[in-house]
Amino acid sequence: MIIVMKTGAPRENAQAVSDRLAELGYQVHPIFGVEKTILGAVGDPSLDKVEAREQILGYEGVEEVVFISKPFKFVAKESKAAKSIINVGGVEIGGNEVIMMAGPCTVESESQLMITAEAVAKGGAKILRGGAYKPSTSPYSFQGMGVPGLELLKEAGRRYGMKVITEVMHVRKVEEVAKYADILQIGTRNMQNYELLQEVGTTRIPVMLKRGMTSKLEEWLLAAEYIASKGNEQIILCERGIRTFEPYTRNTLDLAAIPAIRNLSHLPIVIDPSQGTGRREIVPSMSLAAVAAGTDGLLIEVHPDPDHALKDGAQSITIESYNALMPKLVKVAEAVGRRMAEPAVAIG
Amino acid sequence: MIIVMKTGAPRENAQAVSDRLAELGYQVHPIFGVEKTILGAVGDPSLDKVEAREQILGYEGVEEVVFISKPFKFVAKESKAAKSIINVGGVEIGGNEVIMMAGPCTVESESQLMITAEAVAKGGAKILRGGAYKPSTSPYSFQGMGVPGLELLKEAGRRYGMKVITEVMHVRKVEEVAKYADILQIGTRNMQNYELLQEVGTTRIPVMLKRGMTSKLEEWLLAAEYIASKGNEQIILCERGIRTFEPYTRNTLDLAAIPAIRNLSHLPIVIDPSQGTGRREIVPSMSLAAVAAGTDGLLIEVHPDPDHALKDGAQSITIESYNALMPKLVKVAEAVGRRMAEPAVAIG
Amino acid sequence: MIIVMKTGAPRENAQAVSDRLAELGYQVHPIFGVEKTILGAVGDPSLDKVEAREQILGYEGVEEVVFISKPFKFVAKESKAAKSIINVGGVEIGGNEVIMMAGPCTVESESQLMITAEAVAKGGAKILRGGAYKPSTSPYSFQGMGVPGLELLKEAGRRYGMKVITEVMHVRKVEEVAKYADILQIGTRNMQNYELLQEVGTTRIPVMLKRGMTSKLEEWLLAAEYIASKGNEQIILCERGIRTFEPYTRNTLDLAAIPAIRNLSHLPIVIDPSQGTGRREIVPSMSLAAVAAGTDGLLIEVHPDPDHALKDGAQSITIESYNALMPKLVKVAEAVGRRMAEPAVAIG
Amino acid sequence: MIIVMKTGAPRENAQAVSDRLAELGYQVHPIFGVEKTILGAVGDPSLDKVEAREQILGYEGVEEVVFISKPFKFVAKESKAAKSIINVGGVEIGGNEVIMMAGPCTVESESQLMITAEAVAKGGAKILRGGAYKPSTSPYSFQGMGVPGLELLKEAGRRYGMKVITEVMHVRKVEEVAKYADILQIGTRNMQNYELLQEVGTTRIPVMLKRGMTSKLEEWLLAAEYIASKGNEQIILCERGIRTFEPYTRNTLDLAAIPAIRNLSHLPIVIDPSQGTGRREIVPSMSLAAVAAGTDGLLIEVHPDPDHALKDGAQSITIESYNALMPKLVKVAEAVGRRMAEPAVAIG
Repeated sequence: MIIVMKTGAPRENAQAVSDRLAELGYQVHPIFGVEKTILGAVGDPSLDKVEAREQILGYEGVEEVVFISKPFKFVAKESKAAKSIINVGGVEIGGNEVIMMAGPCTVESESQLMITAEAVAKGGAKILRGGAYKPSTSPYSFQGMGVPGLELLKEAGRRYGMKVITEVMHVRKVEEVAKYADILQIGTRNMQNYELLQEVGTTRIPVMLKRGMTSKLEEWLLAAEYIASKGNEQIILCERGIRTFEPYTRNTLDLAAIPAIRNLSHLPIVIDPSQGTGRREIVPSMSLAAVAAGTDGLLIEVHPDPDHALKDGAQSITIESYNALMPKLVKVAEAVGRRMAEPAVAIG
Repeated sequence: MIIVMKTGAPRENAQAVSDRLAELGYQVHPIFGVEKTILGAVGDPSLDKVEAREQILGYEGVEEVVFISKPFKFVAKESKAAKSIINVGGVEIGGNEVIMMAGPCTVESESQLMITAEAVAKGGAKILRGGAYKPSTSPYSFQGMGVPGLELLKEAGRRYGMKVITEVMHVRKVEEVAKYADILQIGTRNMQNYELLQEVGTTRIPVMLKRGMTSKLEEWLLAAEYIASKGNEQIILCERGIRTFEPYTRNTLDLAAIPAIRNLSHLPIVIDPSQGTGRREIVPSMSLAAVAAGTDGLLIEVHPDPDHALKDGAQSITIESYNALMPKLVKVAEAVGRRMAEPAVAIG
Repeated sequence: MIIVMKTGAPRENAQAVSDRLAELGYQVHPIFGVEKTILGAVGDPSLDKVEAREQILGYEGVEEVVFISKPFKFVAKESKAAKSIINVGGVEIGGNEVIMMAGPCTVESESQLMITAEAVAKGGAKILRGGAYKPSTSPYSFQGMGVPGLELLKEAGRRYGMKVITEVMHVRKVEEVAKYADILQIGTRNMQNYELLQEVGTTRIPVMLKRGMTSKLEEWLLAAEYIASKGNEQIILCERGIRTFEPYTRNTLDLAAIPAIRNLSHLPIVIDPSQGTGRREIVPSMSLAAVAAGTDGLLIEVHPDPDHALKDGAQSITIESYNALMPKLVKVAEAVGRRMAEPAVAIG
Repeated sequence: MIIVMKTGAPRENAQAVSDRLAELGYQVHPIFGVEKTILGAVGDPSLDKVEAREQILGYEGVEEVVFISKPFKFVAKESKAAKSIINVGGVEIGGNEVIMMAGPCTVESESQLMITAEAVAKGGAKILRGGAYKPSTSPYSFQGMGVPGLELLKEAGRRYGMKVITEVMHVRKVEEVAKYADILQIGTRNMQNYELLQEVGTTRIPVMLKRGMTSKLEEWLLAAEYIASKGNEQIILCERGIRTFEPYTRNTLDLAAIPAIRNLSHLPIVIDPSQGTGRREIVPSMSLAAVAAGTDGLLIEVHPDPDHALKDGAQSITIESYNALMPKLVKVAEAVGRRMAEPAVAIG
């Protein structure tokens, strides 16, 4: 850490901070500038870095405390020689193949799900997505089918040879959802629901952690750290757009998160262009862009009849659009030295 | 709702939307403009408005769907003739008196808490704040004292004649925290943790709902609606700063939320200038500004020795600053026709 | 326009608004809902739409005024059957070819410029970029070489067969810069400098208009409208990242602007991943993503020795990186049915 | 400056940076941590700090460069013992008195201006505001009356004993506007129009510099530095709301800018709650809050008939509202130890 003292702060202030840093196990190197004093604190302190920083920030005369090493442990790139590959029942996320995860936003009925599942599987999806518990801004909105929806998902996955990803929103339902899901999804609203993060951290099922709608990369990785701290290291990150002032798109899809996460962490990263833009006509080009930028997978909402979707029809693409998109993704993946996972040979 | 069709969308698109709206119980008034068709949908539909909007947005040819009435029920200003007053064991929040809620960010020890509690009570605080469970961005940071912290809070409140507010972060701990707290606080990270909102909604204890760090006013009020939908109507809103690009302050305190909430809802609103700015030297002026703008209360972090606070020392003011601030608040409150609740007569 | 009246606003309020709308040349269709009155205003008013909206917003009882058609004239997609192709001395921007515009952030010396120009031309750049007048946040920073820089740019362009793009910052220097530049660049800080927009609008030289760092798409297109309103329709848009709360990248590159602009306008759009991310290690993947998303061109900072660049070295890629990137761009362009413009046959 | 090297960056990288820093006149203090190397650079370099930082950021192996002293010269608090007081023909801005600047958004006609001017003067305004040149997002909107508007302003100021503030948007009109205005206003869109800043810097007329709608405090102060660097030190800052994701208010008024600017600079600061919220019903409470927070003045839009205002009627308060607000401001100012400037004794 570097501690910058305020201009004109008396020497005793810097001394008090130095003393506290020494107590915490740091070695302190003061630099006395023309206007300012800086303290360089190095070493391996007894205290967590985030916490140490918070404490020091409170000292009289301190202007700023800057991390010089990132506060991550497990998720940090430095903690692991190679990129992590998450194995989901034989489907590898984080390897050379780009994995398509597709399906309806929400499970609405058996026919809607089966039609969609068959279509996305034939197109090459390896993972079936679908919500059985849906977070809704309003308490009066449809909240998902619950267990019957989970059963349909599992059956559709079995029938069409796909693994299943679905959101878990409730601490008390982790166990239940875990019976049906191959990947537990943590939604954007719950990225800092630490009780839920820790709960899925106690399972041994892969977790997809969506970025909070206004989370910094550092906060996102620290949220992943919460999961890992409970022993579950099967973590996939998912960028789904951040909140900005631009009203045209529902969110601003931050594709630079792909190379940024590569620099910071060994975890795989997946892009959700459906939530990330909120507009179905923009989903295909952002999917292509994500693959070109090096994503490990895509999470796309597909609906056989988006005009009658119960939720988020505006951002769901049709089966026709999905089928038109897949061959383009194959080409772009090849162009950047990756490949899209292929459709399973025989279905149905 | 108003549905704006895309330029050049064929007449059948508008027809399909009109048919669906009619099914949902709306009366539809089409307006055919030079370039565009608009559908005005009025009536009292069978479906929740947020959900109806989501469905319609998915229809072919739809460009935009605009609410014309807000999607709130209980929390809407229109639902109640007068401003709500939340009675917390005799302390009224939302009435003419401005209520000071003060105390340490985090309960660290008996002496730290008792010293602070005595001081803030003497200065006029009616509610003692203090965290026993602390949300931390890093899993390796101090997470609070837990039950012993709750016990200390209750004892300090009793001793110095204050009610107690403390955060509840875990669905499974609502019952426990409810034994000690007079107000349950929902933190900014949990504003859209619907399981937790519903859980505190089943209690009959007043809830303070902090605004999510990037929540729109509408989302905040809908989160309050989640609590109310479970039967608990004792809700206090708390603005604590929103996330912007400005790095000087930790958050940007949105004081315009005070008059805005007055326009939209009957619920009382309180300001947290400590979290809202992250800088102790800015807390006093923002407290004065909040009272001038009409806040129903203040939530302020006070620490006898902020330099050695375990958490958020940078934003905690000293007891001296607190004592210097209170008489100024009294004057500003008077200037705007309110008054600060007075110190209890005899303490200790 | 749709005018939404406030709940409970008396009938006379709506009448006053209707009267004014009629005066302005609109036909008014009122819809009386349960809680609200809505006025649909259609027609071809005498007044500019933005202005009409501002006026109506001021009326008593008006809650909201929503555009139903966009306030653009020349730049709107509807105004032109096909996508615009801007011809820059034989180089076509907006056609099937993706145009590389590369060069140093700032012209520093003859050797720096010539080395870079030769390299980027050999790699396939059609347009040489380079700043002779540089906007600097601080008045004490290097402001560019001025005319000698412009002369070097023109000479480098001539020598290596490229057209030249350079920024014009000063109203009084438009004429001067126009002598040397094939494309006049308007920087992000000047996107709403209307005097400058109008000044370049009076020339007949193509203009590249960078998006303001926090401009909505609508504002950006209206800024383009300023240029067109003076008669210069040779406009290229350039997305260069928007300002968000994320500190890891200098800006958040909004690649969804590519399909969004395609939906709204016939103008070509180019992506600047250098400014858009501020980090050289992220520039290649964002360049690939931009091409996959359908950009008409790239604007990239290249420096023979970024460590000693006078400005923005952190976001300039080396000549080696540039050379490594170009063949990948060729492949991605092919994968999406476009092609990168090829290097001129003989150079030097 | 502190230079943080990347983890694992070879020793030569740090050496190259150290060498360059030494060349620039810094003394370098390296600190070798467990994972990282840090370089503390102190001294009084030959180069501007912003520029030095940009250069160093480009070096191989550099992760971050952190300022330890602010890059301001003239505007920095440290450069002047006391707070600056700007004397505008006898009206002091920055002293104990809080100065009301009020008037119409735009000069529309003689009667509109004179009615408003008389009313605001009687209420205590010392400065008359009004736009003769108006920045409009659309080129087709009303752009202001120009010179006849300036003449009316000057006459109204003379008649009712007020000084005049009006916006100058065009480099080529600075001289003209300077004939009529007592304070030249630089609008939010022009905060980084350096040509215009330098032009008003060459005059000796006080300048009010509005904050850019997404400018950080540091950028705002550096823009002020541009004006001062040309010799004009009569600068008043004006906070007018920043752009965030919240749609309810037009902007988010950042009142914490008041104490923040007090910490950073000796310049006076004024608040514009009209632009800052965009809603007339919110203007009074934000005006009171601004005074409580310590503003040196208010800039408020008043219109005798906001329903028929040509521009921004939605954010203009009526004369009745203005008259109701003034006595409250007087009380709040007193409560915080300031006072509102009093109405001139005899008018007309």
